[in-house]
Formats: sequence, structure tokens, C-alpha cells
Amino acid sequence: MLQAMRTSQFDQSMTRLDLGVGQPGFDLLPWDKLAQAAAHLLPQNDTALLNYGLEAGDAFFRQELAAFLTPRYGYDLTAVDLFITAGASSALDLICTLFTQPGDLVLVEEPTYFLALRLFADHGLRVRGVPLEKDGLNLAVLEELLYEEKPALLYTVPTFQNPTGITLSATKRRKLAELAEAHGFLIVADEVYHLLDYTAVPPAPLAALVPEGAPVLSIGSFSKIFAPGVRLGWVTAGSRYLEKLAGSGLLDSGGGLNPFMSGLLRSALQTGLAQAHLAWLKEVYGRRTAVLTAALREFLPAGFAFDQPEGGFFVWVRGPEEMDTAVLLPAAHSAEVGYQLGHKFSAAGGQANCMRLSFAFYKEESLREGARRLGRVLDNRA
Amino acid sequence: MLQAMRTSQFDQSMTRLDLGVGQPGFDLLPWDKLAQAAAHLLPQNDTALLNYGLEAGDAFFRQELAAFLTPRYGYDLTAVDLFITAGASSALDLICTLFTQPGDLVLVEEPTYFLALRLFADHGLRVRGVPLEKDGLNLAVLEELLYEEKPALLYTVPTFQNPTGITLSATKRRKLAELAEAHGFLIVADEVYHLLDYTAVPPAPLAALVPEGAPVLSIGSFSKIFAPGVRLGWVTAGSRYLEKLAGSGLLDSGGGLNPFMSGLLRSALQTGLAQAHLAWLKEVYGRRTAVLTAALREFLPAGFAFDQPEGGFFVWVRGPEEMDTAVLLPAAHSAEVGYQLGHKFSAAGGQANCMRLSFAFYKEESLREGARRLGRVLDNRA
Repeated sequence: MLQAMRTSQFDQSMTRLDLGVGQPGFDLLPWDKLAQAAAHLLPQNDTALLNYGLEAGDAFFRQELAAFLTPRYGYDLTAVDLFITAGASSALDLICTLFTQPGDLVLVEEPTYFLALRLFADHGLRVRGVPLEKDGLNLAVLEELLYEEKPALLYTVPTFQNPTGITLSATKRRKLAELAEAHGFLIVADEVYHLLDYTAVPPAPLAALVPEGAPVLSIGSFSKIFAPGVRLGWVTAGSRYLEKLAGSGLLDSGGGLNPFMSGLLRSALQTGLAQAHLAWLKEVYGRRTAVLTAALREFLPAGFAFDQPEGGFFVWVRGPEEMDTAVLLPAAHSAEVGYQLGHKFSAAGGQANCMRLSFAFYKEESLREGARRLGRVLDNRA
Repeated sequence: MLQAMRTSQFDQSMTRLDLGVGQPGFDLLPWDKLAQAAAHLLPQNDTALLNYGLEAGDAFFRQELAAFLTPRYGYDLTAVDLFITAGASSALDLICTLFTQPGDLVLVEEPTYFLALRLFADHGLRVRGVPLEKDGLNLAVLEELLYEEKPALLYTVPTFQNPTGITLSATKRRKLAELAEAHGFLIVADEVYHLLDYTAVPPAPLAALVPEGAPVLSIGSFSKIFAPGVRLGWVTAGSRYLEKLAGSGLLDSGGGLNPFMSGLLRSALQTGLAQAHLAWLKEVYGRRTAVLTAALREFLPAGFAFDQPEGGFFVWVRGPEEMDTAVLLPAAHSAEVGYQLGHKFSAAGGQANCMRLSFAFYKEESLREGARRLGRVLDNRA
């Protein structure tokens, strides 16, 4: 029983191919690299990493992280631009605590990352969705909405969005920042997929508007580019926002959010292990994307469509308007295949004809087999 | 500059002996033991620790932790009784998010742990203090208060309290649980000092009332018994409370709060390293308590009093009623000694004549010298 309780309910050896699982496959987790990082760190006797750390995070780690991000984000970052978190969810939770009150309105993409909706609910926040277009948020709808509502913040996954894979265009990024400035709301940009580009380089992250004073809090994480279990991420934002995070009661009491793990990742960056892992992940995920999408083109029946993702973890499949992917799920499970229900990603009760698939968890042959099974289930639907 | 930004502003090599620092000395941090734990863990290739973990925490770690706590808490615990946190502050923050609404009342001890007050403020909570007696909370005052107020929760450090060192008696523990039951509030018991007894074994923790169905959430942590930088702790409580914690949006999205560090501490427990470190800490802290309190008895002028702590980190010194320790602090700093201001620990603007000292950070000779300097400052006060 304990073994079954180890991690999640997901297991690569199971017969069912659950393409809904949106986490890295166990074969992609860098145990050896972490062991090498430990071999680099442990002789250092750096006991500072075992005490209450600086609220914003170990400065040497932030320095390494800033050097890592500078070429990848496309502008100069230094240690003081970064606040270390225990992952993106930890960041979003802290932001909700400090920058919202229950009853406040949060705008999200429609569809959006479903677990962010859970987090907003825990903080008593109201949520409204803004539709997505091929190039990201529909800003015309957003502008109209801003005449009637005063949101506290807008939550977006601007690059390789979860669940759609859509990327917000450079023009819209700038326009969105202007709207936030004009209407006095914060943009919380969940940029955890930004570094996972496979076939097209995305526009500069929303983080890049921070030096210009845009009201953006940009969330990054090692979960997607190294390993979720390290529970380490970062926020970059204007100094007044970072100071609010670092000055919170949680940080004042607990110190930095994960000092010892920060030391391990500092070593992983200093030795190039983290960079090498990211480069390898991009190759593997790139191939998996190609395999899954090729198989979907082969096996999905008429009436089903998706946009080719250029990065990230996900493929968003849209079925005929009248279809409900929830109704079909038992048949899918009988055929030993699974997916995430589209409606989970909707703040408005929509998206029922959609499903989210991921190419992160399974190897290429399983992805193809999963797509084959899914195609058969969709073919045979009533 | 970065070096100065490493951890906290506190440094054992500084001239000033700041007896207000309430964290372990750098000489007490178990770097070698953590390296040994890593040598035990890393050959295991346990990649589950690098993925999103089970929300309640790795079950094998919880199993080890339950075995560790069972003799020390004095009742049988198993893995399912434990929810793993990223330290006590992380636990308290999550409890506030899930079990309170802004405007709710939190009862605290008067005086109480000052950084908990910060955390409650971030969650928009009202706070009222209940005076402490020699055997803990004044329950007569609490009962009266409960006729006029309906608190959401009562926050207590029942054993070797921060800042006073006071321990709630066994009788009062039971009575407090009855009051909570009768008046429908939660007891949040911050029991992080429970295992640090030096001269007297405390009553069973409030956690021990959980199996009887008491509305207690008991918070524990490795910060005081191993190292703050590992950011690992636990909550034990009735299953309906644990399910609420594990089912929160934060956990649903982020997985377990610190999976890889849980693996390291699992190894530290399995190899006996954590137990050995705790035993050693108790010896060291016991000696430091004796040295600091002996020096205070020698050097404090008439009119100053404290109760001999039997465990924990702190000595609470009470000065003459009319004195204000804030007024005296510049003189103390000129004499290269420091303390925590009493009023910080008050939810009611009181305790100005008090100061919190800690024997955790400095070695014995520094503690004695600090007490000597402090005595001289108090002697010479206007």
C-alpha cells in the first residue's frame, strides 16, 4: 500500500496510457545529475544553507540563476531581481495571500491551468475568463471587460500555455502591460514553459517588461526544466513587489523558502548540469511532440483539430461542438487510454468538447499507441 | 556585498552579542550528517522523490517520521497521521489560508511568537491575546473572552513557549481541548520545541489529544531539532483536517511540499543520524541554558526576574514595570549586546518591560559575556 502511496497515482508501467498526465516521465528525472550536484556541494561545508536563509533566497544561488536566465530571457538580470520560491504553486499562493483579498476578481485565460483555479478558490477569489485567440488573450474582450470590472490581477501562462500550447504575441504582451498599467491590475505571468521551446523561439518573456516598470510578477520554476521534486522556483518583478514577498510574515518567520535545495541547484548551475539537462529535455520533448502530433494527425477522426505546439507540455484537442469529452471518458478508460477533461480548464463551465493531452510523461512508442487508442475511441463514439 | 547577503544579518563572529537571535548557532548545523544522509540516499535512484510527490508527503518518509515520533509523543502514530510541510511557517500559512477568512479572530498567548503575528496580519486576521500564567494560558480569562468572541482558532506554543519558555500543564491541555470543542474553534499547537527538553520532561503534546478527536492541528518541524534550512516539518491532526490540507489547491498543483528533502531526512532517520543530532543538541542546549541563566542570576540587577526554562530556545526577562526595553536598546547596542524587544511579542501593545534572550545561537563563553554586558547596561540605566 505504501508503495502505491509513493508519488502520484500515475505509473508508466500501467496498462492504461493516460495522456492527461501532465508531469515529466520518471525516465526524464535527473537523479544522477542531482547526485553529481551533491558531490559538488557537500565538500563545501556551507552551513549557511542549513540555517534560516535570507528571505529572498541565497544570494550566490540567485547570482547563478540570474546568469542562467540573462541569455534565455534576453535581458540583464542580477541577484536582486530574483526572489526564490518553493516552486510556481508556492509563488502563486504567496502572491494571492499578499496581493488579493477574498472577493477580489482574478482574470484568467479561457481555458486556463485548472489547478490555478483551485488555488484561487482557496483564497476566496472570484474568477472570470478572457478568451484565447491564436496569438493569445483576446485583448478586445479584455478591454471591454475592464469597463465593468476592476480585477486585482490577471493570471496568464503567456508562453506554450497550459492547456492550449498557445503563445501570446510580442505585440499583445506590450499591449497587455499597458492595459494593466492603465487599469491598475497586476499581471501574474506563469512563465514555467518559457524555456521549453522546440520548434520556434517565443517572444521575450513578460519578465522582460519588468525593467520598464510594468506591473508584472513573472513566475519561473525548475519543475519543468529540471525536476518537480526539488520544489524550487523564482519570481522576478519590480523591487516594490519583491520586497513585499520577502517582507511577508511567511518569509520573516521561515527564512528563505528552500535554502539547502537552493545550494544543490546552485551547484547544478555552476557545473553546467542543469543547463545540460534542459538541453536534453528539449530534444526529448521535441521528439515526443513530433511523435504525438503526427500520430494524432493519423488517428484522430474528422471533426477533431489541434494546433501544433511549438514548446511546453501540451496538445489541446478540440472536438465537434456538440461533443462532451466527459461522456466519452468511460469508453476511453475501457480502451486503456485517458485525457484531461476540457471543462476542468474553464472558469465559465465551457470547453466540454476539448481534451488536454501531454507528451511529457510517456515515451514515443506509448504516445503513438495512446493516440491510436484515442482515435479508435473517438471513431466509435455514439 | 553578496557575502553579507548570504543568510541573515546575524554573524557569530561579530563583536555584538545579540542575545535576541533565536536561531541555532552555525556550529550546531549538521552539515556532515546531511552529507552522510545524502550518501545513504543517492545510491537508491529513487526518482519518485524528483517528481510531483504525493500531496501528504512521501509515505516512506512519513512512516519513518511516525516511528520517530511515537515514543517521543507518547502514542502510536502511523504515516497516515502525518502531513509533510515545508516547515512550521509553511504549515501555519496554509492553515490560515484554508481555515480562516480575513476579519476572523485568532487568539494568541500574551506574549506570543512575534512572527506568527506577522503571518496573521498577512491573512487579514484580527488577533487578541490571552495572558499566560506559570502553567500556561489563563483559561479563566479565555473562558470569559469566549462569551463575547467567536475565534476561528487559537494559536499556542504549548511547550517551552516562544518567548517565555512557559509550558502548558497537562490539566490545562485537556481543559483547553474541551473549550475548543465546546466553542467550535481550532487549536493550532506550534509544538516545535516539544522535543527539546533539558531538565524536565513536558506533558504529552497537544498532538496526543488528536486520537481522541480533539480539534487540534499540531505543528512540528525539523528546524529546531535538525536544521532550519531543510525546510521540512509536519502537521498531525484529525483526518478531516489533514485531508483539507492535502486537498488544497497549493498541494494539488505543486505536489508534496518538499519531496527530495523528505528523502534526505528519511535517510537521516533511517540511519539514526537525525536521532543522534537531536540527542547532541539537547546536551549542548542544556549546557547553554545553564550557563546563560547562571550568568543572568549573577549579572542582572535587582528588579529583573526570569523563570528558569526547562527546554526550548528562550529566556524571558521581566524588568521593573515602568521600564521600556526599547528605550534602553541604543545603550545596549553601544555596549555590544542585543535582545528582542518584549513589545514585539504582544498583540496588545504590552510587554515593554520585557526582553527575549536566546541561548541557541552563541557558545557558552559568549552567552556569559553577553549576560555580563547586559547586566552592566541595566545597572547603568537612567
